[in-house]
Amino acid sequence: MSRLDSFIARMQAQRDCLNWLAPAIRALPGPLLEVGLGNGRTYDHLRELFPGREIHVFERKVAAHPDCIPPDDRLFLGEARETLARAARQLGPTAALIHTDLGTGDTAANRAMADWLAPALAQLAAPGGYVLANQSLDVAAWQRLPEPAGVPRDRYFLYRAAPSS
Amino acid sequence: MSRLDSFIARMQAQRDCLNWLAPAIRALPGPLLEVGLGNGRTYDHLRELFPGREIHVFERKVAAHPDCIPPDDRLFLGEARETLARAARQLGPTAALIHTDLGTGDTAANRAMADWLAPALAQLAAPGGYVLANQSLDVAAWQRLPEPAGVPRDRYFLYRAAPSS
Repeated sequence: MSRLDSFIARMQAQRDCLNWLAPAIRALPGPLLEVGLGNGRTYDHLRELFPGREIHVFERKVAAHPDCIPPDDRLFLGEARETLARAARQLGPTAALIHTDLGTGDTAANRAMADWLAPALAQLAAPGGYVLANQSLDVAAWQRLPEPAGVPRDRYFLYRAAPSS
Repeated sequence: MSRLDSFIARMQAQRDCLNWLAPAIRALPGPLLEVGLGNGRTYDHLRELFPGREIHVFERKVAAHPDCIPPDDRLFLGEARETLARAARQLGPTAALIHTDLGTGDTAANRAMADWLAPALAQLAAPGGYVLANQSLDVAAWQRLPEPAGVPRDRYFLYRAAPSS
């Protein structure tokens, strides 16, 4: 499998997971969080899936397509570790969906990142909210969900935060 | 169709065209040319499709994954307009395949680029060689080929250079 093959498979898995979660997310109140804007393609997909929905974007340095840059008041600009903490104070645990696509090809660095990323996101997910992550995130209050049909295991990681009791 | 959808479709079309052309290219002698390395995913796909084959890469500034960087003696580093002219002097019309993925989202700039890109590539394609391009290229000696099944029209452009008479 070439890097082109595996990249296509990863992009398809991301889209399939988002499309599959969409009906459940539409049924929940609260904003959506896109952690890592990149070129803005996934942000654009979220805008299409959820028209008019409040989407907050976290990005160190914006380098997206000009059509895919969020409005200033929806952009948390800077290091994710700091901006996620700021968002937690500002938004609280309200997000219906958190999609995170941070990290690099460096597996060890990604694992180390998960140590601070998982608790940071745990403060932002609404009760019953969904998390789609490109890496495993260990949060006691989250339940891992099975991938939708056709999506290979462990390519993306789906979680649901515990509903309010 | 979101930018994520259209990006996935474009990557699939690229791969489908390369895979479809592969048997014909294996039957031809001559090097392969990858014009625009980018992240190196397509270069990796070409290496997989054509193990051991001579692949020359043209790139302004290498920013690919470390595993996808060609050896120095297969890399034409610099502005494509200059490096393609240099390659034409060095290799002549010998390429069994030219894949080009240059350009940006700026349609007018891409059209202007085609004015010098098409004749530059025409000097490199072997008689009977194939060209896969992300934009229309007008070369009298090339015949446009139909896309393989499942690839939408005009997403990629396939050409075959006139065989030697």
